[in-house]
Amino acid sequence: MHDRHIAPVELAKANRLLNHGPTVLVSARHAGVDDVMAAAWACALDFMPPKLSVVLDKASRTRALLEGSGRFVIQVPTVALLQQTHQVGSHGLAEQPDKLARAGVELFDLEGHDLPFVAGCSAWLACRLLPEPHNQQTYDLFIGEVIGAWADTRAFRDGHWLFEQADPAWRSLHYIAGGRFYAIGEALDV
Amino acid sequence: MHDRHIAPVELAKANRLLNHGPTVLVSARHAGVDDVMAAAWACALDFMPPKLSVVLDKASRTRALLEGSGRFVIQVPTVALLQQTHQVGSHGLAEQPDKLARAGVELFDLEGHDLPFVAGCSAWLACRLLPEPHNQQTYDLFIGEVIGAWADTRAFRDGHWLFEQADPAWRSLHYIAGGRFYAIGEALDV
Repeated sequence: MHDRHIAPVELAKANRLLNHGPTVLVSARHAGVDDVMAAAWACALDFMPPKLSVVLDKASRTRALLEGSGRFVIQVPTVALLQQTHQVGSHGLAEQPDKLARAGVELFDLEGHDLPFVAGCSAWLACRLLPEPHNQQTYDLFIGEVIGAWADTRAFRDGHWLFEQADPAWRSLHYIAGGRFYAIGEALDV
Repeated sequence: MHDRHIAPVELAKANRLLNHGPTVLVSARHAGVDDVMAAAWACALDFMPPKLSVVLDKASRTRALLEGSGRFVIQVPTVALLQQTHQVGSHGLAEQPDKLARAGVELFDLEGHDLPFVAGCSAWLACRLLPEPHNQQTYDLFIGEVIGAWADTRAFRDGHWLFEQADPAWRSLHYIAGGRFYAIGEALDV
C-alpha cells in the first residue's frame, strides 16, 4: 500500500529529514515485541556517517527494546498522524498492552531491516545504537548511527522537503506541551 | 529598547522554548571576545533542572569561547532575523573578524549574566556548560544546564507561544540545508 511512494534517501542527505526539528516517532523490536513512542527531543548529530540523538525516558518500553536489540527507527509523523502521535506519546505498553492497535498504528517492513516502520510517516531513519552507557544513564540520551533512510516521495524528493506543494496533511509536527503542536510552515529562502 | 518586552520564563517551562525544534543562535563571551553562530542541531534534554544539548563544530570560535568561560546562550531567532541567522551560520570570526557587525547582530545584557544576548530573538536560555569531554571530542556535542530563561512577550507569554496571533515576523526558523528554512506554521491542538 505504501511501498510505491517510498524511496531511499542517500545517507549524506539523511540529516535533512530531521534538521527542521520535527517531533518524531521512535520504534523498536526485540524478542517478538514492538513498541512505538513519540519524542520531541530528537536531533541530528552528524553528517557522514549520519548520526542522531534522542532522549528516551527510563519508563518507556521502546527504550528497553532498543537497548535489547541495538536497533531502532526514528520516523517523522505528519499532520495526518496528529492523534496517533499524541496517543503513542501519552501511553506506555506496560499500562496499555494494546496501545498500538488502540492508537491505530500500522507497522510495515523494509527489506533488510528487522524493525517496525510506522506507516503514514513522511520519512524513516533506521539506526544502529552506538552504546554510550554514561549518556544513557545520566541523561537518558541515546545516540544512533543512521544505516538506512527513506522518504515518502509525496513529502520529500530529490533531497528536498516539498511542504509548500504537498497537501498540508504531509507537514511535520512540532510539539510544545499539553496537547499543543505546531505544523511546519512557510518556506523561506535566503 | 528591547527590555520592556522581555520577561523571565520559569525554569520548569524553559523546555517549551525549544521543544518545537527551532534553529537557534549560540552566543558566548570569553576574555573580551563575543561570538554568535547559528545551530540547527540544538535540543532540549531535561525538564528540571532544564538541560539542553547543542552540536558545535570544532572550527567555530563560539565553541572555543564557551569552552573557556563555561557559559553560553541559546536563543531563538525569528523570521525577521532570517538573513542575520544565515550569515552568522555561514561565516566564522577567524575569517571575518567584523562578522557580527556585518551581519547586523545587536547584543544586549541581562542583569546577573556576563553573556552576549542577541537582540530581536523571541527567547533566550542562559546556560552553564556541563563538561562532558568524551561527548565534546567524539560527537561535538555540548550539554548545558539552563540557569536563566526569558522570552519576548510578543511571541511567548504565560508559558505559551503566541505564533497564531503574533506578527508572522516572530515565527521561529527551521533550517534544512543550502539557504532553505521553514517558518513554524499552524497551531494544532489534540
